[in-house]
Amino acid sequence: MSLLRGKRLGRMDSEAAAFTASVDRDRPLLEAVIAINAAHLVSLAKNGVVDPKDAASILSSLRSAPTDLEFDTSLEDVHMNVEQYVSKKAGEAGGFLNLGKSRNDQVCTALRIVTRSELLKVVDAILELVESLIDVAAENTEVRMPGYTHLQVAQPTTVAHHLLNYAGALLRDVQRLADCYKRVNLSPMGSAAFSGTTVPVDRDGVARLLGFDGIIENSMDAVSSRDFILEFLSGALLTQLDLSRMAEDLIFYSSQEASYVDQPDDLSSTSSIMPQKKNAVVLEIIRAKAGTILGLFTYAATIVKGLPQSYNLDLQEMNSYVWMASSDLIKSLKLMSKVVRKTKYRKDRLERGAASGFSVAAELAEYLTLKHNIPFRKAHHIVGAVASNLPSIYTFEDIKKMLVKEAKNQGVRLDLSKLPSSYDPSTSVRSKKSLGSPNPLHVKLMMNHMRKEMKDAAGWARQRALSIDRASSVLAKESNNIIKEVRK
Amino acid sequence: MSLLRGKRLGRMDSEAAAFTASVDRDRPLLEAVIAINAAHLVSLAKNGVVDPKDAASILSSLRSAPTDLEFDTSLEDVHMNVEQYVSKKAGEAGGFLNLGKSRNDQVCTALRIVTRSELLKVVDAILELVESLIDVAAENTEVRMPGYTHLQVAQPTTVAHHLLNYAGALLRDVQRLADCYKRVNLSPMGSAAFSGTTVPVDRDGVARLLGFDGIIENSMDAVSSRDFILEFLSGALLTQLDLSRMAEDLIFYSSQEASYVDQPDDLSSTSSIMPQKKNAVVLEIIRAKAGTILGLFTYAATIVKGLPQSYNLDLQEMNSYVWMASSDLIKSLKLMSKVVRKTKYRKDRLERGAASGFSVAAELAEYLTLKHNIPFRKAHHIVGAVASNLPSIYTFEDIKKMLVKEAKNQGVRLDLSKLPSSYDPSTSVRSKKSLGSPNPLHVKLMMNHMRKEMKDAAGWARQRALSIDRASSVLAKESNNIIKEVRK
Amino acid sequence: MSLLRGKRLGRMDSEAAAFTASVDRDRPLLEAVIAINAAHLVSLAKNGVVDPKDAASILSSLRSAPTDLEFDTSLEDVHMNVEQYVSKKAGEAGGFLNLGKSRNDQVCTALRIVTRSELLKVVDAILELVESLIDVAAENTEVRMPGYTHLQVAQPTTVAHHLLNYAGALLRDVQRLADCYKRVNLSPMGSAAFSGTTVPVDRDGVARLLGFDGIIENSMDAVSSRDFILEFLSGALLTQLDLSRMAEDLIFYSSQEASYVDQPDDLSSTSSIMPQKKNAVVLEIIRAKAGTILGLFTYAATIVKGLPQSYNLDLQEMNSYVWMASSDLIKSLKLMSKVVRKTKYRKDRLERGAASGFSVAAELAEYLTLKHNIPFRKAHHIVGAVASNLPSIYTFEDIKKMLVKEAKNQGVRLDLSKLPSSYDPSTSVRSKKSLGSPNPLHVKLMMNHMRKEMKDAAGWARQRALSIDRASSVLAKESNNIIKEVRK
Amino acid sequence: MSLLRGKRLGRMDSEAAAFTASVDRDRPLLEAVIAINAAHLVSLAKNGVVDPKDAASILSSLRSAPTDLEFDTSLEDVHMNVEQYVSKKAGEAGGFLNLGKSRNDQVCTALRIVTRSELLKVVDAILELVESLIDVAAENTEVRMPGYTHLQVAQPTTVAHHLLNYAGALLRDVQRLADCYKRVNLSPMGSAAFSGTTVPVDRDGVARLLGFDGIIENSMDAVSSRDFILEFLSGALLTQLDLSRMAEDLIFYSSQEASYVDQPDDLSSTSSIMPQKKNAVVLEIIRAKAGTILGLFTYAATIVKGLPQSYNLDLQEMNSYVWMASSDLIKSLKLMSKVVRKTKYRKDRLERGAASGFSVAAELAEYLTLKHNIPFRKAHHIVGAVASNLPSIYTFEDIKKMLVKEAKNQGVRLDLSKLPSSYDPSTSVRSKKSLGSPNPLHVKLMMNHMRKEMKDAAGWARQRALSIDRASSVLAKESNNIIKEVRK
Repeated sequence: MSLLRGKRLGRMDSEAAAFTASVDRDRPLLEAVIAINAAHLVSLAKNGVVDPKDAASILSSLRSAPTDLEFDTSLEDVHMNVEQYVSKKAGEAGGFLNLGKSRNDQVCTALRIVTRSELLKVVDAILELVESLIDVAAENTEVRMPGYTHLQVAQPTTVAHHLLNYAGALLRDVQRLADCYKRVNLSPMGSAAFSGTTVPVDRDGVARLLGFDGIIENSMDAVSSRDFILEFLSGALLTQLDLSRMAEDLIFYSSQEASYVDQPDDLSSTSSIMPQKKNAVVLEIIRAKAGTILGLFTYAATIVKGLPQSYNLDLQEMNSYVWMASSDLIKSLKLMSKVVRKTKYRKDRLERGAASGFSVAAELAEYLTLKHNIPFRKAHHIVGAVASNLPSIYTFEDIKKMLVKEAKNQGVRLDLSKLPSSYDPSTSVRSKKSLGSPNPLHVKLMMNHMRKEMKDAAGWARQRALSIDRASSVLAKESNNIIKEVRK
Repeated sequence: MSLLRGKRLGRMDSEAAAFTASVDRDRPLLEAVIAINAAHLVSLAKNGVVDPKDAASILSSLRSAPTDLEFDTSLEDVHMNVEQYVSKKAGEAGGFLNLGKSRNDQVCTALRIVTRSELLKVVDAILELVESLIDVAAENTEVRMPGYTHLQVAQPTTVAHHLLNYAGALLRDVQRLADCYKRVNLSPMGSAAFSGTTVPVDRDGVARLLGFDGIIENSMDAVSSRDFILEFLSGALLTQLDLSRMAEDLIFYSSQEASYVDQPDDLSSTSSIMPQKKNAVVLEIIRAKAGTILGLFTYAATIVKGLPQSYNLDLQEMNSYVWMASSDLIKSLKLMSKVVRKTKYRKDRLERGAASGFSVAAELAEYLTLKHNIPFRKAHHIVGAVASNLPSIYTFEDIKKMLVKEAKNQGVRLDLSKLPSSYDPSTSVRSKKSLGSPNPLHVKLMMNHMRKEMKDAAGWARQRALSIDRASSVLAKESNNIIKEVRK
Repeated sequence: MSLLRGKRLGRMDSEAAAFTASVDRDRPLLEAVIAINAAHLVSLAKNGVVDPKDAASILSSLRSAPTDLEFDTSLEDVHMNVEQYVSKKAGEAGGFLNLGKSRNDQVCTALRIVTRSELLKVVDAILELVESLIDVAAENTEVRMPGYTHLQVAQPTTVAHHLLNYAGALLRDVQRLADCYKRVNLSPMGSAAFSGTTVPVDRDGVARLLGFDGIIENSMDAVSSRDFILEFLSGALLTQLDLSRMAEDLIFYSSQEASYVDQPDDLSSTSSIMPQKKNAVVLEIIRAKAGTILGLFTYAATIVKGLPQSYNLDLQEMNSYVWMASSDLIKSLKLMSKVVRKTKYRKDRLERGAASGFSVAAELAEYLTLKHNIPFRKAHHIVGAVASNLPSIYTFEDIKKMLVKEAKNQGVRLDLSKLPSSYDPSTSVRSKKSLGSPNPLHVKLMMNHMRKEMKDAAGWARQRALSIDRASSVLAKESNNIIKEVRK
Repeated sequence: MSLLRGKRLGRMDSEAAAFTASVDRDRPLLEAVIAINAAHLVSLAKNGVVDPKDAASILSSLRSAPTDLEFDTSLEDVHMNVEQYVSKKAGEAGGFLNLGKSRNDQVCTALRIVTRSELLKVVDAILELVESLIDVAAENTEVRMPGYTHLQVAQPTTVAHHLLNYAGALLRDVQRLADCYKRVNLSPMGSAAFSGTTVPVDRDGVARLLGFDGIIENSMDAVSSRDFILEFLSGALLTQLDLSRMAEDLIFYSSQEASYVDQPDDLSSTSSIMPQKKNAVVLEIIRAKAGTILGLFTYAATIVKGLPQSYNLDLQEMNSYVWMASSDLIKSLKLMSKVVRKTKYRKDRLERGAASGFSVAAELAEYLTLKHNIPFRKAHHIVGAVASNLPSIYTFEDIKKMLVKEAKNQGVRLDLSKLPSSYDPSTSVRSKKSLGSPNPLHVKLMMNHMRKEMKDAAGWARQRALSIDRASSVLAKESNNIIKEVRK
């Protein structure tokens, strides 16, 4: 006889059972479900609701549950499997396991426990990548490269500045996830099906034993809401989108046409028909994964849209999307970190690229304004006219002459004798005056700020993990006390 | 030494290898990949490009490959696993296996083979559901039920009419998939990496051996395009959306408030805390799956967007989405078919619901126009005024009196003595004059049309399956001939 | 001659110009663009980069720009229109307007200004709805209603508890947006095209004049990133999803079948053919808008995915999505607030609904455990068996007898004489012991917490608005000082 | 007094009215709505349901309605505006306008009329682009260019082959839309609210007068289904995705690093700060629009998901998405056509690119197999080993020597004296033997096939347009007859 259907309903159609069961995807919830059961029982026992002996039987059977507990797929989900395990071990006492709780509050509590732990792993992996970016940037503050808009070489920048651009975005991704954590780490336990229970449960106490920072007060809200999953998926997606842009850049730099970087052999593949190929496949998959996570998010949002209040089984479909997203994201981050550390920058090609396409035009226009007080828009037109008449081969002296001539055409007398006779990417980069520019002085400042922010974030993550561990120890201890007390 | 990397590249980083490999998701492609290799070799042998002996060795090793061939996960994908198997079996001759082809054309040919087969399975499952709908409709042409707009009871309809509403939509889903089939069942083989090959391959011949209706001519288009996957996913999504609407309706009809239908016990679940519950969980999961498939579609579209020409590994990410979508959809269709056949309609409740909310108001307004030549908008106002003043309990005679009075207020003299003294859902339904209405006469006509369309579609699907089977026999025979010829 | 193309490029194809221009959608950016130009010029003048006379000319022309400035659609966007206006007013001095900045930093600064202001409006509208919910809840703490899981009546709850369920979710939406604000309110100005400028701009100073809390340091990150838009859209989407669920619930409650609530006439529509209908159209559009905003989010994420570094015109496509989303959301919130205040609850129907479907079964099972020490799972089976044998009409005394009998069947002797002779929704609700339950005591506590959180959030929003206003005054004053100084 | 609310409901809240009205987006439906009303009345008059005089009044007022009919925004939508216009013109007779129809069938009929017309415009624009591609291909069959996989130069191809790759994909897009047309061009008229009407309407006759190929039989299906919009959006999206890939390719070819093509000045823009820039902005917007249309599709799918049967106002939200998508798509197609015709190919750069990266490696490996009977995988290894040891500068003679040496290492004796002393992209391309390859012979064949398919498709589109025009003439004539008859 089924644990749940009892005498209420006959046997379920086997295809329907398989279709509606989540047991094959529930494994990652197992540990959390066991902990939740333990915390709930400890609290009931401490408050005299369940007899210590019964509680002790349940708690020791929970303690004995192997982490690879074999699942009976004919039971619907992880919850019923744990209950069955306990029933077998603890006998009739096991029947008290679900007093004052329901799968509705239990499943979203377990999801929150798993989400917070995945979130912290994601943060660690982002910070590892940020560190790689800063480390490699530190070695490349003087390596000029072309900067782009519209995939056209626009102005010179440096490899360091370019890499830190990603570090900046990734640090905001960390912030965002840390903010999300506050809304994840709240306990629904004690909400039961959605309207609470007549059993005198201690919601705050259970929350503390499970390492939560508080409870979701309204019991219907507690079991219905999946905003914490959507917010986490959104944070994961934004991070993966940053990676996808980085991947796109590096794939372009690796093309024969650009040849700015050499991808490491051990992160590349070759072709089944073209033996000369070296393909940046890791980057391609990282780029594609942004699509996957967007798919997961879209899916989850569509599920939730227009769903009536409280629990509907539709919600079950989105559980596994938490770990699917975090697993893809964490792998992407770790591999991107390897890519960043192992990519070789071809300085000669980069320097040449940085100088191509008359990339110092904007600085020249600014020079005309700052030194010759020509209104910027006019300076822009003068330099623009020179740009459109530039022969395919030219020296900087040619440019100077053309500028003087063009200025004259536009009614401006120009004496460029003070302008140095060469004006290359290095000059351009060093002449930048605005905070956050590729000027090595600004880049060093930026690295200091970023290292500090990275350290603070790592500290935050460590604190969170520690606090969870502490709660876990307390729960183990209290559970043991109850068991020991009875055995005496 | 890796088959592919050979002396070209050293060993791949193991995390990168795992991240970029598809071997763990490639199993459903295995059979197709073996067939493609066989067809390719048969064709090369017949055209004298590969020595019959070498071809025979390869062909017999392919023939011997078990359907559950164990995959070496250190090889990237199904293609390399098959090649390795052949190499081991056929020795040096195995080296000819990839002459004149590439994984690029092979993978999308295999995907097309799998997609066409999944598509035909989906069509069968839709038609099974259509048949269930028509069968149940046939028994319920005289069972009135409330019809809704805005979830408000609007006008009476019948259970048959309501069920056929879905059948109509599902038959268009079948049409759409059949149209899609034309674009799926084209062969890319012979396109090699994307620019064809110097090997004199017979593209049309290989296509025929694999049961394709033709080739995708331009070799770059052939390996780059994944429109057939997107179109299939879109067709699957539209079908699942139809199911999601049907699920929503049935969930509402099953609520205590409506109590119009009884869900079968064996397709329902109960609660872990509320023993009295009977939940229509199968329908909830069917509804949720529309989200899943939308997620898959969104993901696939995002992958393709802005992807440069020819093959990029990003495309690999979407392969498994074909069978993920079709598996969910087929299960949903089959279970919906069971739901349709087993749901019990509560005629008394339905009849009462059909009469509630003054649902014959529109017919009355039409009556006033048709019989009394009152402009319809005026008739609408007269009936509307009656509606808003209707007491909570009333007889049809009351309504008649109110109509006469209200008409008088609006300056119209009305003699309703010919209006029958009761006007119920049954009268309403029978008085419908427009084709396609719930009038049982129209419903019977509709069922005939639908049965015919269903039969034609089933015939089409059978023809397609037959034609694939025939090609498969030819391939087996030609392959055997080559093997036998050599053994002589 | 075009301001920008100057002598560089000839005239643009008119269709291409219209296709790539954003001028028709840029109006909401106008005010921000003017402010940015002013702040930039004030800063340049204060630091002696631009001559005070030139600065004064520009600043007074900016000040004179009408809020409904007519746009010349042949110019690409709002930036060029403002520049052209200034050029006409200020003459040659206008040419200094763009010294040390670019459309790249200007457009995302303007977007951030608009986003922060829309975000604050959204927060106000959410809080208005939260207040309505709490107010109406306060009047309905004693009104029982059916609570659902799987759209099946599950357990009694109260109208107050149900409404506060949404208030709880909405307060998290506010939190989320407030967190987002930190990442929105940072200034990119001074980043120019993406690599900063040789003009000595004061990034921190300009940021302060524009009411920002800081700068986005890395100049490439500053102009490339649109994570603030995605995060805002995600926050808006999550809020609209909460509204869509609320709308779904209310549409169901308004159906004839449920008849639990009466929608106000002035928020309903009728039909063009069925005069008796009253349709909850406002709620339907609110539900649909969740789709719209998901579309906007998907769109924006797809745009950003795989986009190369720095500015690409693709990004322009997503600008207007900020105000499209916030406009839909704010209207939805305000109308939902009206709906909440005007909806009439039909207490008799609700009370009856709350009692339907043996909704107190779970409490009974808990009673058996708490009072008779029967293991909960066994109690669940006993009550379940009673549920499945319940006749269509029964009294509570009948249930008691059946319980005793069923318990006996399962080997348990039960004396239910202490169980009250009736056990209705009111008893059920009052017997709840867990925080956050529908028990009126818990509900009152909850309302206090929520009112406090609401007040704090409103205070935060007011502070932010004030701080923006203050910056705006300072900017106006400094701008005036420069103008006055010159006129002296 | 409102036309509809009459005495049924009081005045609607003005914000609610604005929120739920579609009048501001309905303009594109106006012409169709007028035609539908006319066809409906003609049919009613012919069948003697409406008095010829009343019909004539209505028909002449419909005929007089200006195409820029001013909309009264206080009326909900286009339907009520047309009805009001007719009421004013035709007096009391106007009240017969809505006899036997409802906004529910009328709006989806109008949407189908607009969708089919937009669909035909899209097809024309695709075919125009296909023609441009074939024309430009015809001039470039001998221009070699690098072909890519993974953005790495892989094998030589030709500009013609590359362009035809898109033409092939676009011709499938046309096919797909033509298939979609069959499901769009069906009439819902006569379904009324969803359950038909007691008025003896002639559904087939009205359908013919409106140029439809048939009717959607089931009246509930007819008004509920929006699959025709989703299918059209999906077809539009797949087309735009093809354009996005083409745009991505061309943006890359336009980069300084590649410098393979010159974008026309009149389709490019420059920068507000960097006067030397020439940005392919048209292509960027085309790429971005794939995101927009995906957003529209996602939105529409989300709206439909789980929506209850028959009409709900949610559906109104998706109406305008038909013309939003087609407008973006048509502009994109027309501009892409200009881009294709005006882009200049830099033959020297392309030829050099085609030869870079040892791009003939695959052909060499095939050569070793075909001429020297070395198993392909072994040949692949030999060439691969040479590839990885290739110095940065080398001649083909060097390669030959290295091949011989490497073969010897692998135990194979090789005499390459028959291999020509140079092996360049031109040789490579000409040596291709597989249909559909860049070999100019294959390319010419392909162009013939494509021109034929293009012509057939254009013929189909012309036929469809003609058939709509014919119906429109018949309707005008019959309408005039009725008017004239009465005037006699």
